[in-house]
Amino acid sequence: MPVPQTPLLAADVIIELDGTDRGIVLIERKYPPPGWALPGGFVDIGETVEQAAVREALEETSLHVTLCCLLGCYSDPRRDPRGHTVSLVFIAAAAGKPCARDDARSIKVVDPAAIAETLAFDHARIVDDYLRYRASGRSPAWFPREAQSG
Amino acid sequence: MPVPQTPLLAADVIIELDGTDRGIVLIERKYPPPGWALPGGFVDIGETVEQAAVREALEETSLHVTLCCLLGCYSDPRRDPRGHTVSLVFIAAAAGKPCARDDARSIKVVDPAAIAETLAFDHARIVDDYLRYRASGRSPAWFPREAQSG
Repeated sequence: MPVPQTPLLAADVIIELDGTDRGIVLIERKYPPPGWALPGGFVDIGETVEQAAVREALEETSLHVTLCCLLGCYSDPRRDPRGHTVSLVFIAAAAGKPCARDDARSIKVVDPAAIAETLAFDHARIVDDYLRYRASGRSPAWFPREAQSG
Repeated sequence: MPVPQTPLLAADVIIELDGTDRGIVLIERKYPPPGWALPGGFVDIGETVEQAAVREALEETSLHVTLCCLLGCYSDPRRDPRGHTVSLVFIAAAAGKPCARDDARSIKVVDPAAIAETLAFDHARIVDDYLRYRASGRSPAWFPREAQSG
């Protein structure tokens, strides 16, 4: 069988930082597309998506995160201008002081309900889903919203 | 930026068939690896994972499914002997008579708590997770189990 061509796979992380008033960590991207974003990156062949999420969070923020749950799967073909990339988004906890590293130009902790920065990709929608989850306790994973017709 | 190499991406579906005693649909695979499996297949570039799940279910079972929720993300590099493939697994509902098509040699509706068939990939584990979800109402997506250490 020829190797199938499938979308690229990424893992992104909403990091809830201990000692803050429910703040989450954003990074300013060093490479295109510009803007602020949730920490994350591509999944390597040979690692689980959970390992990729933990690795990318560490590489970009210097934080050792503990994953809490899977918020959802984001797969709109238009969500990444570089090409079709599917992202698994996790909620995680971490302690300590975040420090921008690797692909992150700078870093900040923000109130997810009052983000002034322009977010890259569909990360504004992901944060909206996260806020709904925090308010309702129900994950977007339970409500597939994409068109379901064949 | 060079195109990253990431795992292949698939969508699989646990189809709860109306009019049965909570039976789910299994297909017998036509191509290696042999055995029985949940309907599913690779995600095409340009479609969402939800669209892929609905399309693959239709192609293999002739059933028009309605997705209910995302059961979880399965990404162990050893789960597919052909190479690292990450699967998003959905729970779906359908009515009608399943009919084996496409990559399916034959088809049957089984009690997920009493599957006698040998299941390919990690589908036995996925069915176990599904049964735990049915008993508890809580999705495995809430408990990332893979190694989290960087």
